[in-house]
Amino acid sequence: MKPSIPKGTRDFPPIEMVKRNYIFDTIRDVFYLFGFQQIETPSMEKLSVLMGKYGEEGDKLLFKILDSGDFLEKFQDDELHEKNAAKFALKACGKGLRYDLTVPFARFVVQHRNELTFPFKRFQIQPVWRADRPQKGRYREFYQCDCDVVGSNSLLYELEFIQIIDEVFRRLGLRVCIKLNNRKVLSGIAEMIGEAANITAITVAIDKLDKIGLDAVNDELRSKGINEQALKLLQPIILIEGDNDEKLAKLNNMLEHTASGHKGIEELTFILKQVANLSLTTAVEIDLTLARGLNYYTGSILEVKTLDVEIGSIAGGGRYDNLTGVFGLEGVSGVGISFGAERIFDVLNQLDRFPANALKSTQLLFVNFGENEVSQLMPVIANIRAAGIRTEIYPEPSKLKKQLGYADSKNIPYVALAGADEMAENKINLKNMVSGEQMLVDVVTLVGVLKERFSGSE
Amino acid sequence: MKPSIPKGTRDFPPIEMVKRNYIFDTIRDVFYLFGFQQIETPSMEKLSVLMGKYGEEGDKLLFKILDSGDFLEKFQDDELHEKNAAKFALKACGKGLRYDLTVPFARFVVQHRNELTFPFKRFQIQPVWRADRPQKGRYREFYQCDCDVVGSNSLLYELEFIQIIDEVFRRLGLRVCIKLNNRKVLSGIAEMIGEAANITAITVAIDKLDKIGLDAVNDELRSKGINEQALKLLQPIILIEGDNDEKLAKLNNMLEHTASGHKGIEELTFILKQVANLSLTTAVEIDLTLARGLNYYTGSILEVKTLDVEIGSIAGGGRYDNLTGVFGLEGVSGVGISFGAERIFDVLNQLDRFPANALKSTQLLFVNFGENEVSQLMPVIANIRAAGIRTEIYPEPSKLKKQLGYADSKNIPYVALAGADEMAENKINLKNMVSGEQMLVDVVTLVGVLKERFSGSE
Repeated sequence: MKPSIPKGTRDFPPIEMVKRNYIFDTIRDVFYLFGFQQIETPSMEKLSVLMGKYGEEGDKLLFKILDSGDFLEKFQDDELHEKNAAKFALKACGKGLRYDLTVPFARFVVQHRNELTFPFKRFQIQPVWRADRPQKGRYREFYQCDCDVVGSNSLLYELEFIQIIDEVFRRLGLRVCIKLNNRKVLSGIAEMIGEAANITAITVAIDKLDKIGLDAVNDELRSKGINEQALKLLQPIILIEGDNDEKLAKLNNMLEHTASGHKGIEELTFILKQVANLSLTTAVEIDLTLARGLNYYTGSILEVKTLDVEIGSIAGGGRYDNLTGVFGLEGVSGVGISFGAERIFDVLNQLDRFPANALKSTQLLFVNFGENEVSQLMPVIANIRAAGIRTEIYPEPSKLKKQLGYADSKNIPYVALAGADEMAENKINLKNMVSGEQMLVDVVTLVGVLKERFSGSE
Repeated sequence: MKPSIPKGTRDFPPIEMVKRNYIFDTIRDVFYLFGFQQIETPSMEKLSVLMGKYGEEGDKLLFKILDSGDFLEKFQDDELHEKNAAKFALKACGKGLRYDLTVPFARFVVQHRNELTFPFKRFQIQPVWRADRPQKGRYREFYQCDCDVVGSNSLLYELEFIQIIDEVFRRLGLRVCIKLNNRKVLSGIAEMIGEAANITAITVAIDKLDKIGLDAVNDELRSKGINEQALKLLQPIILIEGDNDEKLAKLNNMLEHTASGHKGIEELTFILKQVANLSLTTAVEIDLTLARGLNYYTGSILEVKTLDVEIGSIAGGGRYDNLTGVFGLEGVSGVGISFGAERIFDVLNQLDRFPANALKSTQLLFVNFGENEVSQLMPVIANIRAAGIRTEIYPEPSKLKKQLGYADSKNIPYVALAGADEMAENKINLKNMVSGEQMLVDVVTLVGVLKERFSGSE
């Protein structure tokens, strides 16, 4: 029987790896450009660090690692008889696989707080594990790519993240739009209509306006217990239109008597003023329906949509007040974004936007004509590699057809044929595998041709 | 209480991450240059894939992941009463964390054999996990960095690996030496003296010649049951000296009547002849005491030692006959090497050989003088970043001392001061944080100065 892998996990073959690396390397370079620093945390955390951080459902979805040694000795017979799997797991497992990058980051900040320079600008690109039911596009092991700055309330960091998003997608060649909201504005709205407890229901309902129409939105709000008086006050918010300036002006009128709303509008205004000052490729739009992670975010909320493909958001984040309180360190605020690397991969793949040189494949294959020719060729090949050309030689003097077949199946664009005749003249027959064109050249010319050919695709 | 991480695991802070990335990126680039392709396999494999592949001790050192759901229902009461931890684990855990990269690679080759092009040249850089007792330099989670080609017996791949080792350490700036041996030569020696079963004991004893002297080596061999007749025949092998050619000539005389020894000498001769043909930085030396992985390797064996630091080998590998037999696919032979990334890190760290630009740290910090100055500066900073200079602006108009302290603690080499006076003139005061030197420059000059300064360190 063929061996296989656990459900919900993936092997990444070469073609996917180079594409994934291209995405991660691009993002990483942009993070560095803005002064962020990479960290990594262990794949396994103490279970006590992870439990209770992701809700009851999350606790169940943690992969738990069995202790080594005689862990069963710790159990009384009646405990075992109970067959309570959850309780058993807590006693038999001291460690679990990380479920996201946020909790390990919070743990990292608390544990190393005396060694860190604040504001601490960190990014982290690592896999996470969830014992979720696998389905299309949802895996039990997948990469997250998070970037945060903690220890500052400055809105300049919101601006940096907008610039980072703009630069990442400019480099990846994807047209995107940034949606911007602010938790304080949402609080202001809820306060204004006297429904502070219902923020989430309100934003979720408003979000459906385009799809289901005003009447249906209002019906949904009623069904969530919003009274007619509140509903009436909410109508101008639901129907708010215009560009950012118009929206800000309208909001300012509507929310001027709520302290929280006022503060939120001030923050949006500052960020958008600074954005206007820069020549970004990406549009930034106020979107009051953005309700992402409302329990966590306390200020700015942002989300990135691609304009080229119908898919959910491909990045998002926001500002939070209390990253590390759960580990006993209060007052660590920050702002962060997370790039949806798996979705970005799907989008680039669908649009076929990976640059040829990012694929890192072999550029030149030397045909093997036998031991004598090979001995003469090896130093030549070494020189070609020294010039940066990714080069192979076929390992055996097999039939030409087989050797060219190898080049074909590895998508190698050039093949070099140097038999006894060519070697006598210090020449190489360079064959373009796509056009079929051949030319007899010396090594210097060969390197020149290939360098020119591949510099175009870099 | 401060949260902490499981014993034997590590957090990698920014300075270690950039150094590790520098090593991995360097190795990765060289692998690509030789036409190798990266793959990744899941962190967790089915336990059935892992069990029995690493010996009895290895089975115990596998981290096992508890199944989700009501896994205890599968157990009879008397099974639980037994409290047999190992047996319990096998029934309660369907998955384990990968223990090395070789078994997952073998599984990958068998599972995907119809999609792969052979010879298949793959590399893989991922963490592995072992429930070993943690000690200095030994971790429960650590990275392996393996490169193999399977599906060919060609010795040209041995040559490629020698070239790869040479190029990797040339790029890393480490002087190394490659030790080369051949399992068939060792078989020939054992056959010649009539002690085929004692190969390992023989090579281990010979290895101690320099440390303990000839008499002690012979005593050790006697204690392992080597008889006097065999010992006498072995003396010229133990005392073999000279350069590679001399050693090959002597071995050829001694082993000419053993088929295996003859074949091994032929292989060594071919490889060394080809090596002499290339201008490598690294010396390649025959070393008959190299006994690495004798149960696994069937042909060439090689190991890399650094000449700059006293430490064990920092890379090694060899040729094997049967990678995938354990998964029912016979006849997949290959050759591979593994770079000891953790040790290479230690060596480079000890020698302080990381190039400055590999550290990816912020190159320029703008001091924050307040909102007006910031608004004017943001487009300027965007231009400087567009020129590739890693740039930050301090997030708050704090006291200058605090802002400069931030630059100091992040080792930022340049600080830009642009207050109202400088802005009025379109000038920036650029301060070199090491020399203390300041110069009043425009943006174009500033970018020029920094680009020149940092190009030198790339």
